[in-house]
Amino acid sequence: MLPMPIIECIPNVSEGRRPEVIEAIAAAIRAVPGVRLLDYSSDASHNRSVFTMAGDAAPIQAAVLAMYERAVAAIDLRTHTGEHPRLGAIDVVPFVPIEGVTMEACVALAKDVAREVASRFGVPVYLYEEASMNPARKNLEDIRRGEFEGLGAKMVTAGWTPDFGPAAPHPSAGASVVGARMALIAYNINLNTDRLDIARKIAAAIRHSSGGFRYVKAAGFTLDDRGIVQVSMNLTNYEKTPMYRVFEAVKREAERYGVQILESEIVGLVPAAALNATAEFYLRIAGFKADQILENKLRSTME
Amino acid sequence: MLPMPIIECIPNVSEGRRPEVIEAIAAAIRAVPGVRLLDYSSDASHNRSVFTMAGDAAPIQAAVLAMYERAVAAIDLRTHTGEHPRLGAIDVVPFVPIEGVTMEACVALAKDVAREVASRFGVPVYLYEEASMNPARKNLEDIRRGEFEGLGAKMVTAGWTPDFGPAAPHPSAGASVVGARMALIAYNINLNTDRLDIARKIAAAIRHSSGGFRYVKAAGFTLDDRGIVQVSMNLTNYEKTPMYRVFEAVKREAERYGVQILESEIVGLVPAAALNATAEFYLRIAGFKADQILENKLRSTME
Repeated sequence: MLPMPIIECIPNVSEGRRPEVIEAIAAAIRAVPGVRLLDYSSDASHNRSVFTMAGDAAPIQAAVLAMYERAVAAIDLRTHTGEHPRLGAIDVVPFVPIEGVTMEACVALAKDVAREVASRFGVPVYLYEEASMNPARKNLEDIRRGEFEGLGAKMVTAGWTPDFGPAAPHPSAGASVVGARMALIAYNINLNTDRLDIARKIAAAIRHSSGGFRYVKAAGFTLDDRGIVQVSMNLTNYEKTPMYRVFEAVKREAERYGVQILESEIVGLVPAAALNATAEFYLRIAGFKADQILENKLRSTME
Repeated sequence: MLPMPIIECIPNVSEGRRPEVIEAIAAAIRAVPGVRLLDYSSDASHNRSVFTMAGDAAPIQAAVLAMYERAVAAIDLRTHTGEHPRLGAIDVVPFVPIEGVTMEACVALAKDVAREVASRFGVPVYLYEEASMNPARKNLEDIRRGEFEGLGAKMVTAGWTPDFGPAAPHPSAGASVVGARMALIAYNINLNTDRLDIARKIAAAIRHSSGGFRYVKAAGFTLDDRGIVQVSMNLTNYEKTPMYRVFEAVKREAERYGVQILESEIVGLVPAAALNATAEFYLRIAGFKADQILENKLRSTME
């Protein structure tokens, strides 16, 4: 028996202050059979909440549409303030393939959801990342530049007709960015030095934007309470830019300054495949297959 | 919701030549609801078959007793020949904790099964490994020494009264060894040399029996078709003697001879925890928890 397909969906909603709105959205997700609400958290200064759910395509789609129904009715961007940039009431909806499902299936799901959102709620949708059909509209930051306040003007300029829905913002709910991407890994490496300049130089060396690895975003920070510095990263495609390659590159760059890696940390979740690839690399395991992992074998074999 | 407890059980049966007997035993396992028969394989020269099944305690116990019913009726050790040492028709029955279950629970299951086997079939049982209640009867090899042919004399000598059942072999089915142990990892490391003496020296350096790691069995072999040598190992407790420590020790010993590790290989199955611990070690991950693995989180969260 093949395992049940699992898609992760992490909608970002522009409401982080009114518990009754946030709870109503969580309840709408929970009410959909076949969807698991794994986590949700809100930030009042960002005035934003992030929901993490998982399930197969059809129930995930139903849960996202149920969220829109609540959010479009309750959130008005004209009076919304917060530190985090945003375009709409439901700002971003990424679909992430986890198990037994391809990226192509997540792209197809993103397009289905985008079409439904536009037709049911009159909210224009831009597709992003793997679902993007326009090279200039792949990055979330580019699509969101100008935010809700600049959206009306942006939507009528050349190249910014949305992928679905009207070429004007929804009056209160703005626009949404919907797409498909790989699972992100939030990965930090701590160095045994207090020199922030070293952490920043290493971050610049390894990140895509300044010549480093294609799927690394990085910055240097000071951990004041510990008197050390950190290279803080997002790994946006752990298959193409694996954890061990990033770790080894940071280690090598640090050596050039006489600095060592103290430790690393994974913030939040990490796909099992990213850890398995790390073990495979360091142990030089030849011909390894995921179904050699006992737990995978147990789950995939059904008599 | 806690995941369903999973115990693995790998009975070794003294029949590897008569397909009808082997298939009848496999069918008896498959007929038990809640048990998955993951694999079975037979070796004619050893005249032995190994069955791998998984499930919770009660169904696993039912499946083992169903195997005994078939095996005791069909196998006669008085006429059995084969290269592999054996004491009984069902020779060895190990229970292995995999998920959501403790070693203590597997020890309790081993004792329950042993008691039932003795009382229903009149087959004497020795407990071994973690289930052993006698330090001299922990290792399978010690218990099995003398084999079926020497069993009658051995059972009446001091210290060899069985843990359950009569102090004499079952006439045709001999005795069984039942116990609980950690999952084994069959792990080989290939070296870029054809010098068998080096593989043997490294094996001797790392294995328990000659002064090495507590939970490593190792030997050196030549891979004739490739013109290289191999350190072939069984890791009998990957928590206490982890894969990365063994790999690094072999690497360091090989360097002393000017030899490098070409690659390693995992034969058969490996627990996910053994690979995760390897990634944690090499990436120096601080404060890592298994529920940070996305797939674990997905499986343990139920709304």
